[in-house]
Amino acid sequence: MRRSIVNDPDQLVPEALEGFVLSHPARLALDAEHRFVRRAEPATGKVGLVSGGGSGHEPLHAGFVGPGMLDVAVAGAVFASPTALQVLEATKAADSGHGVVQIVKNYTGDVLNFRIAGEISGDDQVETEIVLVDDDLATDTADGGGPGRRGTAATVIVEKVCGAAAEEGQDLAAVAEVGRRAAASARTMSLALTAGTHPGDEEPQFALGDDEVELGVGIHGERAARRVPFTSADGLTDLLLDPLLEELGLERGTEVLAIVNGLGGTYPLELNLVARRLHHRLGDAGLAVGRSLVGSYVTSLDMHGVSLTLMPLDEELRRLWDAPVQTPALTW
Amino acid sequence: MRRSIVNDPDQLVPEALEGFVLSHPARLALDAEHRFVRRAEPATGKVGLVSGGGSGHEPLHAGFVGPGMLDVAVAGAVFASPTALQVLEATKAADSGHGVVQIVKNYTGDVLNFRIAGEISGDDQVETEIVLVDDDLATDTADGGGPGRRGTAATVIVEKVCGAAAEEGQDLAAVAEVGRRAAASARTMSLALTAGTHPGDEEPQFALGDDEVELGVGIHGERAARRVPFTSADGLTDLLLDPLLEELGLERGTEVLAIVNGLGGTYPLELNLVARRLHHRLGDAGLAVGRSLVGSYVTSLDMHGVSLTLMPLDEELRRLWDAPVQTPALTW
Repeated sequence: MRRSIVNDPDQLVPEALEGFVLSHPARLALDAEHRFVRRAEPATGKVGLVSGGGSGHEPLHAGFVGPGMLDVAVAGAVFASPTALQVLEATKAADSGHGVVQIVKNYTGDVLNFRIAGEISGDDQVETEIVLVDDDLATDTADGGGPGRRGTAATVIVEKVCGAAAEEGQDLAAVAEVGRRAAASARTMSLALTAGTHPGDEEPQFALGDDEVELGVGIHGERAARRVPFTSADGLTDLLLDPLLEELGLERGTEVLAIVNGLGGTYPLELNLVARRLHHRLGDAGLAVGRSLVGSYVTSLDMHGVSLTLMPLDEELRRLWDAPVQTPALTW
Repeated sequence: MRRSIVNDPDQLVPEALEGFVLSHPARLALDAEHRFVRRAEPATGKVGLVSGGGSGHEPLHAGFVGPGMLDVAVAGAVFASPTALQVLEATKAADSGHGVVQIVKNYTGDVLNFRIAGEISGDDQVETEIVLVDDDLATDTADGGGPGRRGTAATVIVEKVCGAAAEEGQDLAAVAEVGRRAAASARTMSLALTAGTHPGDEEPQFALGDDEVELGVGIHGERAARRVPFTSADGLTDLLLDPLLEELGLERGTEVLAIVNGLGGTYPLELNLVARRLHHRLGDAGLAVGRSLVGSYVTSLDMHGVSLTLMPLDEELRRLWDAPVQTPALTW
């Protein structure tokens, strides 16, 4: 049983947004009506960047609002898309006359509401481009049918490189293009030892046997196609890494950007073991971790699990990744 | 039941340190034999700063190694002090000829081993000063008897202000003095809804009834003197805040530095609710949150709970807090 630190569960998202913005008064401002967080000092003279989606994945997305990354992040209820009206207002708030790139994780509701908002915002002379993030290898289908791969932790990469491209002064098409290129080349695999528990609920979203691991789990408590036996940190890392390496088919000498991402209930000691195995395995394969993040960046409430994201780096993506960023959850 | 992502539990700390340093190759280096993490490029021409203690509190301490904060962090086993020999080697590694401030959380083993190491390091002409962090209000005893208050999340503040003072070129006595001043004025209260689970164990360190909250819990699974009824996020925040405000007796108009700290299994939505209530309550009392951190900085494995730290700010402490810092867990 998990008891949540919550007042009225129906007011969780607006109250949490308020608390978050109160904690960053110099950096962030809140539109309480439309539940979006924007930079306290809106940027001008550059392409705007808006992202968002269901809550419960913090620090995604509002934690990535700031110079070098997003202009605006819009929040739905826990695991539910923001409405088209919310996205519309957030998109307009992100615009300074140079158009807006909408970064959208590939889920039906999000894609629908961002698309509608994008179309309507054209009536207000706001040009938009959608960049879809669909990195979750576990939902790849050979025939390309169905809704396609889900969007998970590669969202952080796409938000970062688009943010840097926009700060550099690249135009709407170019910012969208580099985001699409990052999204197309990044893949993620996730596993869970325990599902997350919705605020106000007492039981996790699904139950697993003591010797089972959910391999290929989503960030909304979607069950995976496979349950595999529980094993060591190294063995669990290999379960994520083997299919990624097979899919990406990286040539020896390739440098990758890696995200070792905790899903909410995973502590740093555990993530560091995954990072260690990752470095060893890639080194053995003649590959290198050129850049990495290790931490809980795209979570699923308190899910105990980990995701691994890999993207091959080239000169442009490395430059955009390395560019300065000042947000609550990512600063360098 | 919680299953850990671990290989051999006895090798958890060295393996995790290796993974951590591999993830920050440009910034950090590892002394594997003595289990300490140091800056990749040692600083010179300033007072050195070393801290450390048991593992299981990540990102404390190794996450705070870097320009503007620690020079070296030394790690014991989970919830166990590093040995005096480890601390000695870590202290020597932190020295560049200007002496070393040792920042020590107030636990018997840590205090003993840092003290021994400080004495022995004098034989190598390394001058040391100990700054003891003892902020945990729950362990305050009116008569000052016993081991005194435990050290908890105020350690982050002490490491930050001492780090900034050292970068400014302050001498050994002055760096220690500002650390002691911060430690003396900061107080923390903590509560837990669920205890943490040791890596390799399957059951948490203690069990609570469904309607109970452990108020005044420590960061090593120490039980508290009081169990109180479970309540809302606002009510839980008040349980922490009321005794802090009573103890600190702040005058209207005072600005405080606040740390809303997750103990490991607490997700950002929950912490943001605590932050919201904190801002409302302090505002109502004519106080202000001048600076704050909201996140999981001083953890107790995956304990589900929160601690609240308050320290009144003056001009010097604000300047030192605001000074630049570049570490894995804190950068601005």
